[in-house]
Amino acid sequence: MRDVFVAGAAMTRFGVFKDASVKTLGARAAMDAMKDAGVDAAAIEMVVCSTAAAGTLAPQGTTVPQVVMREVGVVGIPMLRVENACASGTTALHQAWLAIGAGVADVVLVLGVEKMTGAPRAKVFEYMASASDVELEGALGLTMPGVFAMIARRHMREFGTTREQIAAVAVKNHAHGGRNPRAHFRSPITVSDVLAAPMIARPLTLLDCCPVTDGAAALVLASGPVAERLGRRQVKLAAVALRSGTYAEDLPLTGFDATVRAASDAYTRAGIGPEDVDVAEVHDCFTIAEILHYEDLGFVKKGEGGLVIERGDSALGGRRPVNPSGGLKAKGHPVGATGVAQVVEITEQLRGQAGDRQVPGAKVGLTHCLGGFMHGDACAVGVSVLTR
Amino acid sequence: MRDVFVAGAAMTRFGVFKDASVKTLGARAAMDAMKDAGVDAAAIEMVVCSTAAAGTLAPQGTTVPQVVMREVGVVGIPMLRVENACASGTTALHQAWLAIGAGVADVVLVLGVEKMTGAPRAKVFEYMASASDVELEGALGLTMPGVFAMIARRHMREFGTTREQIAAVAVKNHAHGGRNPRAHFRSPITVSDVLAAPMIARPLTLLDCCPVTDGAAALVLASGPVAERLGRRQVKLAAVALRSGTYAEDLPLTGFDATVRAASDAYTRAGIGPEDVDVAEVHDCFTIAEILHYEDLGFVKKGEGGLVIERGDSALGGRRPVNPSGGLKAKGHPVGATGVAQVVEITEQLRGQAGDRQVPGAKVGLTHCLGGFMHGDACAVGVSVLTR
Repeated sequence: MRDVFVAGAAMTRFGVFKDASVKTLGARAAMDAMKDAGVDAAAIEMVVCSTAAAGTLAPQGTTVPQVVMREVGVVGIPMLRVENACASGTTALHQAWLAIGAGVADVVLVLGVEKMTGAPRAKVFEYMASASDVELEGALGLTMPGVFAMIARRHMREFGTTREQIAAVAVKNHAHGGRNPRAHFRSPITVSDVLAAPMIARPLTLLDCCPVTDGAAALVLASGPVAERLGRRQVKLAAVALRSGTYAEDLPLTGFDATVRAASDAYTRAGIGPEDVDVAEVHDCFTIAEILHYEDLGFVKKGEGGLVIERGDSALGGRRPVNPSGGLKAKGHPVGATGVAQVVEITEQLRGQAGDRQVPGAKVGLTHCLGGFMHGDACAVGVSVLTR
Repeated sequence: MRDVFVAGAAMTRFGVFKDASVKTLGARAAMDAMKDAGVDAAAIEMVVCSTAAAGTLAPQGTTVPQVVMREVGVVGIPMLRVENACASGTTALHQAWLAIGAGVADVVLVLGVEKMTGAPRAKVFEYMASASDVELEGALGLTMPGVFAMIARRHMREFGTTREQIAAVAVKNHAHGGRNPRAHFRSPITVSDVLAAPMIARPLTLLDCCPVTDGAAALVLASGPVAERLGRRQVKLAAVALRSGTYAEDLPLTGFDATVRAASDAYTRAGIGPEDVDVAEVHDCFTIAEILHYEDLGFVKKGEGGLVIERGDSALGGRRPVNPSGGLKAKGHPVGATGVAQVVEITEQLRGQAGDRQVPGAKVGLTHCLGGFMHGDACAVGVSVLTR
């Protein structure tokens, strides 16, 4: 496969934007990414768009990439939407990476966009809960907070992970979000705040859960020769791996097999190991999830995730900062945009443009996105490795 | 790019299936396609799933490929859903073709599935209407029957196309559907029936419109060496082209620029011209659409589409049969399955397995799928060329 570079990266502010639509949010991110790459509309050869809730939460039910890209003058070329629950963004990245890697295109725009607020709350819950087998888990009333609450209790019992360690993930990510002008939540919180917040699914409270957010992010990916010509060869997209769950009957419920496999694929392809990762953006849809990911991505052994957060290893200034952007927890989780925005953050980190959030000298970054839950495993996991 | 072959092809019956779900329909088609290809679950390296209305019309809102494929024992590998309005099926085909063509996989399963009935009728209309710019056309109340009614009137005025010629498309496709045991509608109708049916959008009546249908279709695509080993090298997927609309201000509204461009790409890639096509499956969402496609695909000059149907050229037994399966009009239009089912029909035609619908000696087949309408052009068009 040919080398693939991130020539341009941009995102909107994440938050609640009453008057915004998929079209206005998406067009803003796409335009800014093209500007960042130094390319005009005519240079784009293909568009891969990630949007998860089109037609369910947002009125633009279909033809999302066409409606958005026409606003910025990109027309006529192949465009498609991909969807893979909360891993939609990394899935779009994967398809674009394959197209350039395989030589069928030189410049591909990846767009992630979601307008989630404004829809009735019950609709949002129903939609999120449908990221499982609705004839089985759905019929039993299992929702995502319920899934991660079970996982938290199991991890606490199995490994002695404490409630305070779990809460500390939210505290860290809010602190990081405070340094990110594009984050949904920017105010600091404490462990006591997390414990005292309204209970959602024991032991998880409201402050253990990521918010419902609007936003968009976009990337211009380019082949080596084009990135060279644009002067944008700093950040290489060294690997993108996509996996689905195995749903084996003996899954332990203290980690995601799909993450372990996707990470292994990505490390192999990029020729690195977990010890080489300087900074990571991972899928902290719930606080406990980030602890699992430390382990499944190979940063520490299974069961030691609670210690990572307790020691401050994953905080800015620590050994290997995780979610410097604030993560899903504080930056927000506009589903289809999340995986793309993770790459925007890592690109800025590797370029040394992350301002107050900069991880000094970061050379290798990782993103990790996880979607759906069925029979004890995630349905889709995408992992990417970026290098400079 | 490497050669790509259709090693396996299967579809469910299309129709109204009260007790069926995305899971049961999809699993049936996937299992039958794997059986047809002579491969087991372990052989599948990637799944590209096309479903358009997940979460809007069917309760399985997301993770559709994972839920379906787990039923047939395919787990752990990369899976994704693509969506591109009514062209979703051909878009999935395009992504799978790229993956094998580029050498990143040898065996890819393409699944198209839709459960559309059972949802409230108003929801179906709202969903279909959202395949445009909802902030513009949507706000103006433009729906797909309205779009194609305007196109019909313009075509009639510009080229003298008659109401009877337009109706004759429905008559032909119902006749073809009568020969297809998997078609939604199998009873013959007459031109008088079409003209006397309830008016939907003048001049189009109920019998000018395709139905709301449930169904699934699946393909096993394979690289040359694998197809050889399986003894399934008969049908080559010579080209798949995907285009979006140009939405130029001077579009004539008597054809789709996106079809012209996608067809040109596909012909060039396959090294053929329209005159070489022996049999075609095209997107007859409304009768008038098929007349446009005769012209845009280059079978005849612009304006002569009405003559094609009048002369019987596109009927079974004619010069170049179009929609021998019955098309969207009679076979049915389960949106995400349509583009995949078109390839199932052409595969059977090229293998000489189409029974009463067989086009004798067919060597080159074409499929054409069209999605969305915005500013005078289709949003997405996919064209594929298959050869034996």
